[in-house]
Amino acid sequence: MKIKLSALAEKLGLDHTGDDMEISGVNTLEKAGPEDLSFLVNPKYAQLLDTTRAGCVLTSGPYADRVGRALVSSNVYMDLAKVVNIFAKPQGCLQGVSELAYVHPEARVDDTATVYPFAFIGARAVVGARSVVFPGCYVGEDSAIGADCLLYPNAVVMGSVTIGDKVILQPGAVLGGDGFGFAQTPFGHMKIPQIGTVIVEESVEIGSNTAIDRAALDTTRIGRGTKIDNLVQIGHNVQVGEHCLIIGQVGIGGSTKVGNNVVLAGQVGVADNAEIGDGAMIAAQSGLAGKIEPGSRLAGTPVMPAGTFLKAAGSCMPRLPELFRRVKALEKELNAVKAAANGGNDDE
Amino acid sequence: MKIKLSALAEKLGLDHTGDDMEISGVNTLEKAGPEDLSFLVNPKYAQLLDTTRAGCVLTSGPYADRVGRALVSSNVYMDLAKVVNIFAKPQGCLQGVSELAYVHPEARVDDTATVYPFAFIGARAVVGARSVVFPGCYVGEDSAIGADCLLYPNAVVMGSVTIGDKVILQPGAVLGGDGFGFAQTPFGHMKIPQIGTVIVEESVEIGSNTAIDRAALDTTRIGRGTKIDNLVQIGHNVQVGEHCLIIGQVGIGGSTKVGNNVVLAGQVGVADNAEIGDGAMIAAQSGLAGKIEPGSRLAGTPVMPAGTFLKAAGSCMPRLPELFRRVKALEKELNAVKAAANGGNDDE
Amino acid sequence: MKIKLSALAEKLGLDHTGDDMEISGVNTLEKAGPEDLSFLVNPKYAQLLDTTRAGCVLTSGPYADRVGRALVSSNVYMDLAKVVNIFAKPQGCLQGVSELAYVHPEARVDDTATVYPFAFIGARAVVGARSVVFPGCYVGEDSAIGADCLLYPNAVVMGSVTIGDKVILQPGAVLGGDGFGFAQTPFGHMKIPQIGTVIVEESVEIGSNTAIDRAALDTTRIGRGTKIDNLVQIGHNVQVGEHCLIIGQVGIGGSTKVGNNVVLAGQVGVADNAEIGDGAMIAAQSGLAGKIEPGSRLAGTPVMPAGTFLKAAGSCMPRLPELFRRVKALEKELNAVKAAANGGNDDE
Repeated sequence: MKIKLSALAEKLGLDHTGDDMEISGVNTLEKAGPEDLSFLVNPKYAQLLDTTRAGCVLTSGPYADRVGRALVSSNVYMDLAKVVNIFAKPQGCLQGVSELAYVHPEARVDDTATVYPFAFIGARAVVGARSVVFPGCYVGEDSAIGADCLLYPNAVVMGSVTIGDKVILQPGAVLGGDGFGFAQTPFGHMKIPQIGTVIVEESVEIGSNTAIDRAALDTTRIGRGTKIDNLVQIGHNVQVGEHCLIIGQVGIGGSTKVGNNVVLAGQVGVADNAEIGDGAMIAAQSGLAGKIEPGSRLAGTPVMPAGTFLKAAGSCMPRLPELFRRVKALEKELNAVKAAANGGNDDE
Repeated sequence: MKIKLSALAEKLGLDHTGDDMEISGVNTLEKAGPEDLSFLVNPKYAQLLDTTRAGCVLTSGPYADRVGRALVSSNVYMDLAKVVNIFAKPQGCLQGVSELAYVHPEARVDDTATVYPFAFIGARAVVGARSVVFPGCYVGEDSAIGADCLLYPNAVVMGSVTIGDKVILQPGAVLGGDGFGFAQTPFGHMKIPQIGTVIVEESVEIGSNTAIDRAALDTTRIGRGTKIDNLVQIGHNVQVGEHCLIIGQVGIGGSTKVGNNVVLAGQVGVADNAEIGDGAMIAAQSGLAGKIEPGSRLAGTPVMPAGTFLKAAGSCMPRLPELFRRVKALEKELNAVKAAANGGNDDE
Repeated sequence: MKIKLSALAEKLGLDHTGDDMEISGVNTLEKAGPEDLSFLVNPKYAQLLDTTRAGCVLTSGPYADRVGRALVSSNVYMDLAKVVNIFAKPQGCLQGVSELAYVHPEARVDDTATVYPFAFIGARAVVGARSVVFPGCYVGEDSAIGADCLLYPNAVVMGSVTIGDKVILQPGAVLGGDGFGFAQTPFGHMKIPQIGTVIVEESVEIGSNTAIDRAALDTTRIGRGTKIDNLVQIGHNVQVGEHCLIIGQVGIGGSTKVGNNVVLAGQVGVADNAEIGDGAMIAAQSGLAGKIEPGSRLAGTPVMPAGTFLKAAGSCMPRLPELFRRVKALEKELNAVKAAANGGNDDE
């Protein structure tokens, strides 16, 4: 795959500086060669512009004149996504429905879909146009996979789950496993059968080995455009809004509501029955419960304003042993002062 | 599936108020329609009784007269589990041993068991009566699966693992992967082969993508009735007692002993060689090591009494910067007092 | 499998005490019988030497005379690894390439390799000598698996990933899933296709259901001899050095560099773009970012010296409510002292 810089610029609606060239790939400033396009987003790495061998650099205006050839953008990441898309090769090596797949006679697989060997499509399940179901995937009975979906190897969609268009399930993702619901009885924990479902709206991506449980009775829902990283746990009945970013190893307890455009950084834990307002951003490893205001910036367990956490845990915490010593010294000195004062009094 | 309220009440040994009706499903107070049964456990949601459209509500005595028809229970969750069980439809769409499965000639699969396409049953492995092995599952050589078990898609039971009756493995659960054991040598980490096994006792449930390692030499054991959530890590040689609840993303280090009726909330980390007494409850995200007394209520890393943690981390922690300022002010003022006193002394 | 103690000693280049015997297995001091060899590493368990029924104990010199028969070693764990290796039986029950596997016509599988039923080997993929690919594994197009590798059931190696010799993938491990990279646009998060790869060097072990993402553009790399436990998340572009130990449920953010011989204990979280120096050891559940000096011993979120954390979080934290009370009391008393002093002044 090769493309002229001028053609690329036109395709993206951007201007370029320097003479035209043929671009054959995309790489980092450090690794790009003279036939590659590279990019600069973070000013922190601007000095790499002096040493990069990249034939052309996609960057914003202020940096464009620091290289011989620049593709000038006001949203470098977005245009980078578009450029990489041009060079990207989809995963996989087969097309059509394999004879080594199991497709239930009552399932409906679109003529343009691909189903790999050892994939299983259950009764009355639907696989939409151009969707690809890789080896080892399971699509349970009565489940529906939209159009243009990618179910990477060993992804599991249990029965009666609905997945919108353009959804990507990374390898080993599990949708619709049973929620963790048990009644306490004198004979131990009695399973409450989980008869609800999961709805994943369009353009959602779900990471490798992430698990999203079906609702106890109604619906666990992941809103349009939300991106979920690897090894995330989402409990039953959870409602995740649109365009959220949920980073690796986050855990969300049952029945919690997550608003739109929320960012949960890595390993965050959210209790069950919590409510997180739109646009909240929660720092990595935080633990939260209850109601979180929209737009909050929080950190810590339990969460506090991120700035407070930075001071409290970052600066104060390591100095706690010192603080205890200082308070002890103060107590001693104050006693001495009081004793002296009393002594003085006694002298009078 | 429909059932008369009177028949349901009789089946459960409960009384009902209001006239008889035909129940066709179960749902939450908010989502239930006039043909559905709903339920109230938490008094916090009692006001929903005023607006629910549910035809009948399963609840405890004090709330029964707030709705037209109630099914009166002294253990609502337990009776809910029973009711939902009546309406629940099992996952799956096939029965019997598929010709597309691989069953080793020396394996023994009960006549009443189901083995789906692309499941693998190894040499001398046993699958018990009425158990169901979904697509993509692996049951290694010499492993034994009890009766009435469910192995959901892509669950892995490595060789020589023993699983009791009525055990449920959610999708992607891994039993008997190698424990993490290495000898430090001048040439790097040398693998200590893990030749022990895993025993899972009856009525255990294991969550999606949870991993339970085989012992180095003897046995990793999960006690009867214990329920383990998704993405939990259980190291080699761990002994988990009976009727525990281990919530999502908990990690338990090697050789740790967990008593009976222990609750480990989400993302708790337990060091290796720890010992947790019966009935202990550990709050989410806590980190613990050493010996934990039976009945403890702990939180934090390292753990402390849960009430102390709530005060220390919840109230005190965010006010640490303020405390440092107050101590500094005290030091300054005390110095001033002392200087004044000394000044007084000088004057004398 | 049985071996004479004298033969074993010779094989390992060790001396033994006591008369010769035939050893038929290895087990713990508590579980070993008279035909078993056992071992003692940790002096803490030395009193078990008095009661063990083991026929022979592998241990270091100081303990050898406390049992009738000892195999004397200066690196007990290393020699234990060698002994267990003699008794270990490899997982699995088949050999050769199964007719129930899918091997792409353009794939190259070594004659001595084993590919189980329902494994998928993509176009131009290579599987090296004596490597074993268990059921449900996926080896994507253009990927290369070295010699003597074990891909346990349902391990996934996406396209264009390279795996060195003697690598072990535990069940459900995912290599080369897409990194979590999105451009923020007015229309939501736009996926940046992840066109880089993953390289796993020789003698690496990767735990059950662990996920290692492919790089955005270049390479995610796991260095020679590094051992990764279960449910670990490694983001795109991460560089892990040689001979590291990365314990269960650790998460490493994108583009982070981990040096050689680093130990990250369970549930540690590392931010993206961090840099961890050689030989650093990070305590369980810690959270770190930025640059970490070689040889550091750190703990906490954010990390501080491990000794400081132990004091601050272990001793000081639970006493914070008390400290607040003490400071309040000091303030009150100091005010009283000042008032008294002022009173004195007034009197003058």
